[in-house]
Amino acid sequence: MPVVGVIGGGQLARMMVPAAIALGIEIRVLAEAPDSSARLAATAVGDYRDAATVLEFARGCDAITFDHEHVPQEVLRALVAEGVAVRPGPDALLYAQDKLLMRERLGALGVPMPDWARVESADELAAFLADHGGRAIVKTPRGGYDGKGVRIVDDAHGADDWLADGAVLVEELVVFQRELAQLAARRPSGEVRLWPLVETVQRGGVCAEVIAPAPAVGDAAERAAAEIATVVANGLGVTGVLAVELFHAADGRVLVNELAMRPHNSGHFSIDGSVTSQFEQHLRAVLDWPLGATDALADWSVMINVFGSLPDAQIAAALGHQPSAKVHAYGKGPRAGRKAGHVTVIGSDLDDVAYRARAAASRFEG
Amino acid sequence: MPVVGVIGGGQLARMMVPAAIALGIEIRVLAEAPDSSARLAATAVGDYRDAATVLEFARGCDAITFDHEHVPQEVLRALVAEGVAVRPGPDALLYAQDKLLMRERLGALGVPMPDWARVESADELAAFLADHGGRAIVKTPRGGYDGKGVRIVDDAHGADDWLADGAVLVEELVVFQRELAQLAARRPSGEVRLWPLVETVQRGGVCAEVIAPAPAVGDAAERAAAEIATVVANGLGVTGVLAVELFHAADGRVLVNELAMRPHNSGHFSIDGSVTSQFEQHLRAVLDWPLGATDALADWSVMINVFGSLPDAQIAAALGHQPSAKVHAYGKGPRAGRKAGHVTVIGSDLDDVAYRARAAASRFEG
Repeated sequence: MPVVGVIGGGQLARMMVPAAIALGIEIRVLAEAPDSSARLAATAVGDYRDAATVLEFARGCDAITFDHEHVPQEVLRALVAEGVAVRPGPDALLYAQDKLLMRERLGALGVPMPDWARVESADELAAFLADHGGRAIVKTPRGGYDGKGVRIVDDAHGADDWLADGAVLVEELVVFQRELAQLAARRPSGEVRLWPLVETVQRGGVCAEVIAPAPAVGDAAERAAAEIATVVANGLGVTGVLAVELFHAADGRVLVNELAMRPHNSGHFSIDGSVTSQFEQHLRAVLDWPLGATDALADWSVMINVFGSLPDAQIAAALGHQPSAKVHAYGKGPRAGRKAGHVTVIGSDLDDVAYRARAAASRFEG
Repeated sequence: MPVVGVIGGGQLARMMVPAAIALGIEIRVLAEAPDSSARLAATAVGDYRDAATVLEFARGCDAITFDHEHVPQEVLRALVAEGVAVRPGPDALLYAQDKLLMRERLGALGVPMPDWARVESADELAAFLADHGGRAIVKTPRGGYDGKGVRIVDDAHGADDWLADGAVLVEELVVFQRELAQLAARRPSGEVRLWPLVETVQRGGVCAEVIAPAPAVGDAAERAAAEIATVVANGLGVTGVLAVELFHAADGRVLVNELAMRPHNSGHFSIDGSVTSQFEQHLRAVLDWPLGATDALADWSVMINVFGSLPDAQIAAALGHQPSAKVHAYGKGPRAGRKAGHVTVIGSDLDDVAYRARAAASRFEG
């Protein structure tokens, strides 16, 4: 029985567990705390920034993978030096950890992106703003997620606090029709599989809803997204799931917004909506097993995130109101704004599917 | 977070774990041994025949349910006496534990069955044989499964060994077109949901293959099976999944063969083929939560059991050969003839679905 170790005990690790059970894979989790979302599979609690802790955890694992991208490069490289199969490896993860390096590397690969610049001073920011209509997005290169470390700026001094810590990434404020995500998986021996292109709806910088496939997006955008994900997966040597968040610009361009090298919120629909879920595919990929079919199980899947808390009584109410809704609770304590779970509904009529998903999710509010 | 305790650590308990993870239910397993199939969720290892062990395990659980039906009545009743929610309860489980009591009770409910008799001597067996063409099925009332405790007899002394221990059940040898199974679930407040009627193919008294829905079985048989399962679920006060194994007799009758009050091999297809799997439904039912939709995700599902062992290399080979096959490994050590896992394929063309399922399963042989 192969053993996969997952660093990080969040909901992504949690949702790998059912896939591991099905495939007969032993899954072990290095959690941050005893009450982590993935606590059922936690075999260790410790600091993922400590090489000794992570090395001890990795002993006996056939592959090490991740719930998040925050494990420091020096820890990753210490694992590799000890012969641990780190998947994705540090050379790939680097581009998911540092947005400036990612932009540079994608540029070298010829991948379409928003205009961007590395900015080290207010003067350089002023120059970028002057060239881009006076407004731009500023991002810290590291540590941002779910809207954190991202800011819209219209003043040359609007990023002074971040610039005090070093260079930032500045990007064109893309006028977009919609946001898209292209989910892919790659195994070390090279096979790449793509799921259908999806539309993501963000609220407050956080994914709120995903519609699979992206409605009426057009063949050209679908082809562009598939090409981008394939080039990125192969070009960066990704192992496992790769999520490419995209802008579908008002002028029709498909541009890379962000990358994630792990199962991603934009792919949660695949648990209930695809022959192979992103979590199963990720495990297959990190073990270099053949990848599964990514066909849809229905014409449409709609996934809605639930924030804050998921009390039992509300789960029962949602299940009673929508018997076809698939509820996924993350086993977390209540906290305002935190992703507590999600709901997916699949079916043949998009309006009906979206109605049922939203109706079920609305039972969790208030 | 509700807590469900499962007595028994076999593959049925194992396959409840993914459903529990999705619904945010804490699942605890009382396993027979440390290396049980459901070891990931095992919080105790002990003897389910010992009331003190089971009572200790049940502490803090909102409901207790089962991987098998072998927990003695006195243990079940001790749990109930202590206020534990035992689901299904001892009054229902009795009929899954004792085939003679089951036949008597189903007779009182007017459910169609093969001719049967309670037989206490070779003389009584001789009389039954004389009335039924000289051949009959003899079953021990308790402890049989997967063909054990079942014997075809054509001699009045063919069950002397079993009769030395007490009465046996004797049944008409039904000439059948096919075997069927009707899966249902019932929650304590009364809601009953049925999955589509399925055809089961047995080899050597063990389920080998399940086709959902049963092909070309006809409306009358479908209605009869649904009626039987509903009457049995309500009449016996079942909580959780009920599997009714049926003969579709050559003369068109639909007759009850066996009952199981837990998720059942004939329902494994529902993990990949139904909106709500039998494992999720069972957990919802034992918590008295609303039941889920049982609609099929595709026109056809074919489930094939894999026996003996499921080496990693063979799993990878099967996945590579059939990217749409859903493989379920039970995490057991190799043993000839033991159910080691199963494969399910779903799709719109039965011949194609069955071909792919058998092709994937065949990779595990030899």
